[in-house]
Amino acid sequence: MRNIRLLVEYDGTDFHGFGRQPQVPTIQGELEKRIAVLLGEPVAVVGAGRTDAGVHALGQVVSFHTRVPIPVERLPGALNHLLGPAVVVKQAAVVPEQFHARRSARRKRYHYTVLNQEEPAALAGRFCLVQGGRLDEQRMREGLAYLVGRHDFRAFQAAGSSARSPVRTMLAATTRRVGRFVVLVLEADGFLYQMARIMADLALQVGAGEVPPERVRQVLAGRQRVGRAAPPQGLCLVKVTY
Amino acid sequence: MRNIRLLVEYDGTDFHGFGRQPQVPTIQGELEKRIAVLLGEPVAVVGAGRTDAGVHALGQVVSFHTRVPIPVERLPGALNHLLGPAVVVKQAAVVPEQFHARRSARRKRYHYTVLNQEEPAALAGRFCLVQGGRLDEQRMREGLAYLVGRHDFRAFQAAGSSARSPVRTMLAATTRRVGRFVVLVLEADGFLYQMARIMADLALQVGAGEVPPERVRQVLAGRQRVGRAAPPQGLCLVKVTY
Repeated sequence: MRNIRLLVEYDGTDFHGFGRQPQVPTIQGELEKRIAVLLGEPVAVVGAGRTDAGVHALGQVVSFHTRVPIPVERLPGALNHLLGPAVVVKQAAVVPEQFHARRSARRKRYHYTVLNQEEPAALAGRFCLVQGGRLDEQRMREGLAYLVGRHDFRAFQAAGSSARSPVRTMLAATTRRVGRFVVLVLEADGFLYQMARIMADLALQVGAGEVPPERVRQVLAGRQRVGRAAPPQGLCLVKVTY
Repeated sequence: MRNIRLLVEYDGTDFHGFGRQPQVPTIQGELEKRIAVLLGEPVAVVGAGRTDAGVHALGQVVSFHTRVPIPVERLPGALNHLLGPAVVVKQAAVVPEQFHARRSARRKRYHYTVLNQEEPAALAGRFCLVQGGRLDEQRMREGLAYLVGRHDFRAFQAAGSSARSPVRTMLAATTRRVGRFVVLVLEADGFLYQMARIMADLALQVGAGEVPPERVRQVLAGRQRVGRAAPPQGLCLVKVTY
């Protein structure tokens, strides 16, 4: 059996998230279906991160095992021919038997992108949250800085999570501005259910001046679920490090 | 009767172009339908440019007449509530009776965006042409420079055009690079049918080294239709000047 790793980009708008579900289009379901057609045998695909409905990826990583001796360098072209334009395989490689896209991941980086303008946006609106009013990035960075380090992040976990431990290590939590876009950069050794979007929502409240930056520290220390999550279309899984 | 001008942004992917057609979704049809619902009377909308199926706009301008005394500042919000996310009204203003979105336009600027990389792109691919290989921008700019000025552009006109004269004035024809993106900037007092996409296709041939920059001058002087047009998703009407 060969173990194969794919680097995958997708527009999550029209999918019900990453995880396979009956009857509705999902990224995992779409990949498994097309790989099965190509290889002529069913496959089980594992993803590094189970992105929610509407969340995008520039750098999702998936892996699967197969006995079919297809040359790995032919996989991206052949699969992209079968997949629709919203899911693209950018790279394929044979990896060691023990590699597992989710369990082997050491770090994941998400971007949450805000287009800071009053008017809605028909083009960029597909890939970001459009939000008017002032967004004070200095305040946002100050608030986000409280998240960096090893903490119990249960306050930033949505109900319905199956994680065994709420302890994670945030490696980066900051912002970058590119013109009218404010990009929240969140990198951790793992993310709890909806953690990135809940952090983004709180950071946006800080940036809008609704709550002080210290509120982030209080929420973290309080370990009480805040619940509110920023909308999915702003979130993108940009990189998984192994 | 008041004459009202709207600034409109749209994602053209799922529309059969700007111009109204029976049975299929078009930008003009969508705007007329939603404005009629809002005002309670039918309206005829005129657009600055009749963009093709799949072409986008950041700065399309449309105008229409109405007797309904709705406050113009309420139009964007009310219309965006009725329109889907792919069409957005960014501004509205009352303009003089004689203003006509198409006939009053003095200049239109289009961008044709190329993502210069080998792999397909699920996110950016919606709004650009993904093309690998070398793209020599110096050569492209050299070729495009032949287009600037007042010329007979019939060689860059697709069959089926209804324009009375093929003479137009190109005010700008150049390229800009933003990371992996190469943006062709094309500005003229008017564009013949598919002219921007036919120019983009030829410029890309020059950039890829398939034809020399002088080929642009020869095509222009030859006045024989070249026919081939770059795919629509790379094109965007970015600005109309009055």
